[in-house]
Amino acid sequence: MNTLGSFTIQTFTGLSAFRTGMFRLLRSVSGITVAQIDEEVAKLLELKLRLGGDDGKHQFVLKTPKGTRDYNPKQMAIREKVFNTIVSCFKRHGAETIDTPVFELKETLTGKYGEDSKLIYDLKDQGGELLSLRYDLTVPFARYLAMNKISNIKRYHIAKVYRRDNPAMTRGRYREFYQCDFDIAGHYDPMIPDAECLRIVSEILSELDLGDFHIKVNDRRILDGMFAVCGVPDDKFRTICSTVDKLDKMCWEDVKNEMVKEKGLSEEAADLIGEYVSMQGGMDLAVRLLEDPKMSQSKQACAGLSDMKQLFSYLQLFQVTDKVVFDLSLARGLDYYTGIIYEAVLGPAGATPPPPQAGAPKAEESLSVGSVAGGGRYDGLVGMFDPKGRAVPCVGVSVGVERIFSILEQKVEAEKVRTTEIQIMVASAQKNLLEERLKLVTELWNAGIKAESMFKKNPKLLSQLQHCEDSGIPLVAILGEQELKNGMVKLRTVATREEVDVSRADLIEEIRKRTSTV
Amino acid sequence: MNTLGSFTIQTFTGLSAFRTGMFRLLRSVSGITVAQIDEEVAKLLELKLRLGGDDGKHQFVLKTPKGTRDYNPKQMAIREKVFNTIVSCFKRHGAETIDTPVFELKETLTGKYGEDSKLIYDLKDQGGELLSLRYDLTVPFARYLAMNKISNIKRYHIAKVYRRDNPAMTRGRYREFYQCDFDIAGHYDPMIPDAECLRIVSEILSELDLGDFHIKVNDRRILDGMFAVCGVPDDKFRTICSTVDKLDKMCWEDVKNEMVKEKGLSEEAADLIGEYVSMQGGMDLAVRLLEDPKMSQSKQACAGLSDMKQLFSYLQLFQVTDKVVFDLSLARGLDYYTGIIYEAVLGPAGATPPPPQAGAPKAEESLSVGSVAGGGRYDGLVGMFDPKGRAVPCVGVSVGVERIFSILEQKVEAEKVRTTEIQIMVASAQKNLLEERLKLVTELWNAGIKAESMFKKNPKLLSQLQHCEDSGIPLVAILGEQELKNGMVKLRTVATREEVDVSRADLIEEIRKRTSTV
Repeated sequence: MNTLGSFTIQTFTGLSAFRTGMFRLLRSVSGITVAQIDEEVAKLLELKLRLGGDDGKHQFVLKTPKGTRDYNPKQMAIREKVFNTIVSCFKRHGAETIDTPVFELKETLTGKYGEDSKLIYDLKDQGGELLSLRYDLTVPFARYLAMNKISNIKRYHIAKVYRRDNPAMTRGRYREFYQCDFDIAGHYDPMIPDAECLRIVSEILSELDLGDFHIKVNDRRILDGMFAVCGVPDDKFRTICSTVDKLDKMCWEDVKNEMVKEKGLSEEAADLIGEYVSMQGGMDLAVRLLEDPKMSQSKQACAGLSDMKQLFSYLQLFQVTDKVVFDLSLARGLDYYTGIIYEAVLGPAGATPPPPQAGAPKAEESLSVGSVAGGGRYDGLVGMFDPKGRAVPCVGVSVGVERIFSILEQKVEAEKVRTTEIQIMVASAQKNLLEERLKLVTELWNAGIKAESMFKKNPKLLSQLQHCEDSGIPLVAILGEQELKNGMVKLRTVATREEVDVSRADLIEEIRKRTSTV
Repeated sequence: MNTLGSFTIQTFTGLSAFRTGMFRLLRSVSGITVAQIDEEVAKLLELKLRLGGDDGKHQFVLKTPKGTRDYNPKQMAIREKVFNTIVSCFKRHGAETIDTPVFELKETLTGKYGEDSKLIYDLKDQGGELLSLRYDLTVPFARYLAMNKISNIKRYHIAKVYRRDNPAMTRGRYREFYQCDFDIAGHYDPMIPDAECLRIVSEILSELDLGDFHIKVNDRRILDGMFAVCGVPDDKFRTICSTVDKLDKMCWEDVKNEMVKEKGLSEEAADLIGEYVSMQGGMDLAVRLLEDPKMSQSKQACAGLSDMKQLFSYLQLFQVTDKVVFDLSLARGLDYYTGIIYEAVLGPAGATPPPPQAGAPKAEESLSVGSVAGGGRYDGLVGMFDPKGRAVPCVGVSVGVERIFSILEQKVEAEKVRTTEIQIMVASAQKNLLEERLKLVTELWNAGIKAESMFKKNPKLLSQLQHCEDSGIPLVAILGEQELKNGMVKLRTVATREEVDVSRADLIEEIRKRTSTV
């Protein structure tokens, strides 16, 4: 509601006028999108509701909490389809699944997220333990591994996480949102599990049919080595790293400015970094940098670069090199990464929208919708929970499905999405056949057929048929006195309006035959 | 931890001795169950952990919040199976699905749960709206209907709900637990949707194969009418009703005592109630009570009894009369029910364990595991949210899956439950074939086969085969130099140890053929 901060709304008539003016204002600003207008409208309507509606009397605020939403049946149908695709992929790769509570002990989350900790939802102290809602699925996973002394597992976990972030709901950014995580914990030969994570992202994004995409990879050790050889002081690695992380949202000049003016880095160091972070490539780039006179001086960078070379050799076997780009500008925010990091972006490789010009408004919102999956290696996290500090190396990926839902919802908006799976409706043209309809529908349920009948004594045939059209039910079984006498049913195909008489004994077989291909 | 309230534990050696003593004490108390001992042990171990472990130094408390649990892969496999059964049934009956946020505005939950409101989890006030975790799925459903002006929907919703209750985890009672709700909202001819809810409970419990069960039904109007004709003052209906609700946990004498001594009911009124609440039957009982000289004086009771008669006629069509018992002692706790109410109990009809004798320890825990589903009609709830008070009649049922999980987990404890779906492992007896293994596993993934290979350069054949045995993988593709030269693969069936040579071109077809029947 921050856009409204400086206005005082005195009357509801005033609000209305204000709204109209606000719309004009919004439309006149160049570059504003329909989605942004929708969001402003939603905010204003919410404000109106809070103020008590047009009639001025206080009323109950009928809404979901800020940054959250209900899923209606159509959205659920899309969600189910997306989850099925993702889970099939995880299962194809042999993952087990676990679940953890929606809240954790507050201290479990403490010290894991750096600055972002302020976004954690805490529960009220009602006596007993202090609790917080989970912020991601990675920390609960590490807690689970340490608690159960598991040193070896390939698991997926699909669940909601919670962040008191600034929501941008029309662009798929919520305070309550799903994460679909796949992680491999355990000691293996280097880079094979890492390569499988990239293969998985590639399979999922291909199967969801979201258009072209590519996956950027980098390595924390390469970043740290690069900072070292460019002359960044040790104690500035993390803060410079988080500035580099903004390169997908800010142009280089702004990033450099932040490094030099805000974070006190020397201009020379910044320029050296600038050269490196513009580099993109594949295995060739890793090979080249291993021979780079500066880079090769850092042991860390060399370790990262050798692993990168190895990674690309596995990616070749896994047939995904065309989707993966080694990109030295990729940094990622989270503190716990220790090795390879990656991020999947919609759009073809190399066609990343160019960073905006210096001084131009930050395009964070419109660009960030491009990132749909991310992850990396975090070899130290489990050790933070283990009483003996025993480390379990882990690598994983998180698919950000809310953004994918947004894209697919827009895509299928025009199409008809079925929200039930009913195969047949039991209908009647005549009165007083409720009992016979319910008897037949029970027979169908007994046979496992998805069937329904209207719960009215004497519905009109037309409204029964209309219901089938509306909700995509493919078949209708029509009962009448004549059919009942002869032990028959009139079977109607909704799409073609064709009707045939089927004997009651053959009905179930006939429905199965017809709906197995529908 | 209340059992420990009066002890002071001074040393860790002391704790150990205390624990041993506690065990002896527990075992010596007649009627104590293994489950209860387990629970005490868990509490003590938790205490030990909090005190810092045997070495006396403080350590991080590695646990999930009180009353919650993780699901391990085996438990998840069971959970998935149960959900599949339940969702299939809901879909067979034409239900759509929705989802709502895990928290609601605090005021959305206010005034909906009566005394139980104290069990609601609140979120900390971190600025912005005041929020609470959902307590059930029914109130969010009613809020959803009112907010979206929906007057007509058949929907299911499977999600976790939260209650700051006294957990009894070994008996399936948690603070975070799943509910599987199916509800029908809208105006229909009386009792048909109500009958479908009972049919659904019956289908689900039959398909889950939990042994015998029966469903008790009653009606809030029959209860209120009964109270009226027995001479209960109007303002005592709700409180006497909640005492009646304890009849499955307390014997009649204790219930009567509570009514008379605590709630000030006359002895005569209590005795009259006592006669009615011992009655069980079917449609016949409804017919008999309609002619009962006292009952027939209450308009409310008559309306409830006529509907009960009608309900049983539909239950007959739906073929579930053998599972349903009209039981005048069923009251159910929640305030919002307005008509029919029901509760499914494991065990055959009529074989409800007899209420314990007066003064005997309350057997709440052991009996309450019997109830696995419940619900009823709530015609007033949506109107509480609608700005214009517009009512949407609703009836629904909630399946309590945690109890079902507990039962099934115990049942399958001995059996081997597969936690992955891998169809084939790509293995090798020889060294330096990692690349060839990864190439083949990629081919299989491309074909949609669930496949894996060990992420070690040179694993031993024995450990590869052992892994298949352990995790139930049915097939192994063994690669060797010879096979690679000839374009063949050795295909091994794990169960029989039989091996055949298959050409690489036929492999995928062969795997599909063999695993479609496994």
